[in-house]
Amino acid sequence: MNFRRVLIGFSILMFVGVMAAEPAADVREAADRLAASIYVGPGMHTLRELSDGFGGRLSGSPAYNHAAEWAAAKFRSYGIQNVKLDPFTIPNGWVRGTAHAQLLTPVSHTLHLESLGWSPSTPAGGVRGEVVIVDDVSAENIKAQGGKLKGKIVFLDISKIFADGWVKVLAKLEASYPLFKDAGAIALVFPDHDRNNVLNATDPNWGAKLLVLPGAQIGMEDWQFIRRSLDNGPVTMQFDLQNTTSGPTQVNNVIAEIPGSDFPDQWILIGAHLDSWDYGTGAQDNGTGTAMVLDVARAIASAGKPPRRSIRFALWGGEEQGLLGSYAYTQEHLNELAKCVAVLNTDNGSGHPKGWKVEDRKDVKTAMQPISDSMLKDIGGGGLSLETTYDTDHGPFMLQGIPVLDLWVEMARYVEVHHKSSDTYDKVDPVDFKADTAIVATTAWVIAEDPQPIAPHIEHEAVARILKKAELDSLLAYIGQWKP
Amino acid sequence: MNFRRVLIGFSILMFVGVMAAEPAADVREAADRLAASIYVGPGMHTLRELSDGFGGRLSGSPAYNHAAEWAAAKFRSYGIQNVKLDPFTIPNGWVRGTAHAQLLTPVSHTLHLESLGWSPSTPAGGVRGEVVIVDDVSAENIKAQGGKLKGKIVFLDISKIFADGWVKVLAKLEASYPLFKDAGAIALVFPDHDRNNVLNATDPNWGAKLLVLPGAQIGMEDWQFIRRSLDNGPVTMQFDLQNTTSGPTQVNNVIAEIPGSDFPDQWILIGAHLDSWDYGTGAQDNGTGTAMVLDVARAIASAGKPPRRSIRFALWGGEEQGLLGSYAYTQEHLNELAKCVAVLNTDNGSGHPKGWKVEDRKDVKTAMQPISDSMLKDIGGGGLSLETTYDTDHGPFMLQGIPVLDLWVEMARYVEVHHKSSDTYDKVDPVDFKADTAIVATTAWVIAEDPQPIAPHIEHEAVARILKKAELDSLLAYIGQWKP
Repeated sequence: MNFRRVLIGFSILMFVGVMAAEPAADVREAADRLAASIYVGPGMHTLRELSDGFGGRLSGSPAYNHAAEWAAAKFRSYGIQNVKLDPFTIPNGWVRGTAHAQLLTPVSHTLHLESLGWSPSTPAGGVRGEVVIVDDVSAENIKAQGGKLKGKIVFLDISKIFADGWVKVLAKLEASYPLFKDAGAIALVFPDHDRNNVLNATDPNWGAKLLVLPGAQIGMEDWQFIRRSLDNGPVTMQFDLQNTTSGPTQVNNVIAEIPGSDFPDQWILIGAHLDSWDYGTGAQDNGTGTAMVLDVARAIASAGKPPRRSIRFALWGGEEQGLLGSYAYTQEHLNELAKCVAVLNTDNGSGHPKGWKVEDRKDVKTAMQPISDSMLKDIGGGGLSLETTYDTDHGPFMLQGIPVLDLWVEMARYVEVHHKSSDTYDKVDPVDFKADTAIVATTAWVIAEDPQPIAPHIEHEAVARILKKAELDSLLAYIGQWKP
Repeated sequence: MNFRRVLIGFSILMFVGVMAAEPAADVREAADRLAASIYVGPGMHTLRELSDGFGGRLSGSPAYNHAAEWAAAKFRSYGIQNVKLDPFTIPNGWVRGTAHAQLLTPVSHTLHLESLGWSPSTPAGGVRGEVVIVDDVSAENIKAQGGKLKGKIVFLDISKIFADGWVKVLAKLEASYPLFKDAGAIALVFPDHDRNNVLNATDPNWGAKLLVLPGAQIGMEDWQFIRRSLDNGPVTMQFDLQNTTSGPTQVNNVIAEIPGSDFPDQWILIGAHLDSWDYGTGAQDNGTGTAMVLDVARAIASAGKPPRRSIRFALWGGEEQGLLGSYAYTQEHLNELAKCVAVLNTDNGSGHPKGWKVEDRKDVKTAMQPISDSMLKDIGGGGLSLETTYDTDHGPFMLQGIPVLDLWVEMARYVEVHHKSSDTYDKVDPVDFKADTAIVATTAWVIAEDPQPIAPHIEHEAVARILKKAELDSLLAYIGQWKP
């Protein structure tokens, strides 16, 4: 394998003189040992401890707090000295309680309905009323309804409301909730779209804000039945939600660091979010990412030689509520970010690996290419994508101009279980999981060992151009994580 | 279209002298008018009335009884005079009540569990105990467990128990239930196998027999979690089932007949089952079949000319508990069966049509071939399969040696929703549903008009050979619907 790598490297150097060089032989050999250690290592067992042991880990919940303590103890058990719980505050803690729902007319039957995340409880006894479907959440439309929404349960026809895409609609949608309340609506219901009334029941707000009305998600077949029934006359229903809401709540990111031997003040970061939705046990989202970070930490800590640069490991809270933990970290540790060489994030599940997304940084792609070709291709992750997203914790670091790599995998299986009851340990393919972990470790090691940073930080203006091209600028300004 | 049909028929007659002839022009024209009437007819509306209007229709339940009255009224509304409710008795009526389940150790959480069909209620307060997984239901193995099953909740590892196929295992499985009870087990749990803990919760017995122990079905992810937890120590759980059981209960098949003009004492039968499981609303299984039968009846009744032979329409009860309604009909009307020319059944959902299954009757296939080629191919159902099954209401008529045709369709979508909460109206594709209905009408009309019966009745010995070849003989003898 090494022989072939040398040949490929030689060809690249011949034909593309200015291209970044492939890693030195000793770096490659150490990275190979890391990958081998991961392949026979305890990663699957770590994942099982996390997902079966703590279950769903909503940010700020007891399950999250226990998992954070467990993760810190894991890092320490690998011999890492610099482990800490790094706090930030979310606007509201929230823990799901019970939900009961009943269709009353035209027929009586139990509905598949659960509370949306960060919904208040209903008044005692629940809410009861006629259903009205709304497919336009503009202020003009809501006002034009006159008294028609008073005392009603508003069903939001998401397929029509999100026709222009969630990114463009979020601000208008969030602005509509108080307008519905002012118009006299008593509750909001969002339909789900999975067969068998399977629910995911996430939150419709960014940032752990409480909904202003009781809000629920209803199963697809129940929603279709109600929609058809409305052809024939009024539909009435009742539902009762009981949730626990705390006000501003401390959540701890878990941070660990292996100091570098040659450039200890320079660091790369390997991160994933520890929090999950509460419906399954967060095995793919993001138990696998958490277990990858932990197992890469274990492998590097026991490699026999520290990396030349420091490697920091981060397990974030608050990701599901809007990248809150990683964003808070970039604000709290702003003065250290100038020395952050790269951020590697993993949060797309553990599907068959493809490589890395480099978020529209052509310079990062060019710098990564020889690493991908000479080392990652042979372990399944040789691809590099320029796609730009703001859907996980690489985002806040990207806004700071730091080179970010987001692990790129096949996502079909992930999408099937995403935020649902099926996001459990039994769905994780160990072959793909190990390959993904090895790709993270290999890439991190090579970047940490290279005397040259993989790519420069870019200026605010350059970040702005990337965001504008990806049509993310308005959303990010709206949520307050970006100042244009 | 007719022109092409003539050409095809001509070629067949040239090269295959003994082949059955294709239908006469006037028969084809009348069948085309039926198909056209179905294409623009109310079939989808009828299906919606049934599935949304009555919901799940367990045999003997109030919902079933209301649906039977509705179906009889539908037949009468088409101008059919000979409509009746034809009673038979099932050993037990059963209606699902509530189910609650909780894992107690190693962690406490709510389980996805529902009562198996025809399970008794638990004692007040439910059952509580340790879980034991059993993967061998032989009498020897159960006895060999000694006292290990006493006070335990037995989880049956279906994937291993059914390794030889359900048909071969049913008798042994049913025999095991009292043995588990004798060994002191307090309940039986079967795992389901669909993502997101989706359940179907059917019954593990043939013939509407009550289970001897409280029995439940548990969601796939919950089952996997329990299985993994057992690696680390005891697992305890509790569940509470409340169901309503009546003893011997009358169920009514719905029968209607359009008398034939030329051979009124000869008849063909077009049937489907009206009963359904209770988890969804029985739209594909078998609302579509019911709506097909009703719409074919409507179309033929309003055709302006009666068929030459009588056409009988049957909507069966008790199919889901073991073809109980159609079997009872063959016993109660044994003296009329000699004049039954053919039975057309539809109960595989309304997927994209393929044609007909003729249950290993090569003579029926040969007789059908010119009809399939000249008329059914152009409307999507030109295929003929020799596959033999005993999975729906053609079965009891097949045992009498009568030529039977079971509608053959693509079943992928049907399998997805089968017996689940997702078996609802919104899943039915009207294009395929109309095509299936037209194929039933066309085939029935041609067979009813032909002066020659499509194929003879076969003797008991010949039926026995078909059953033996399909490895169905032992099962049928066990359930008592066949005497070898």
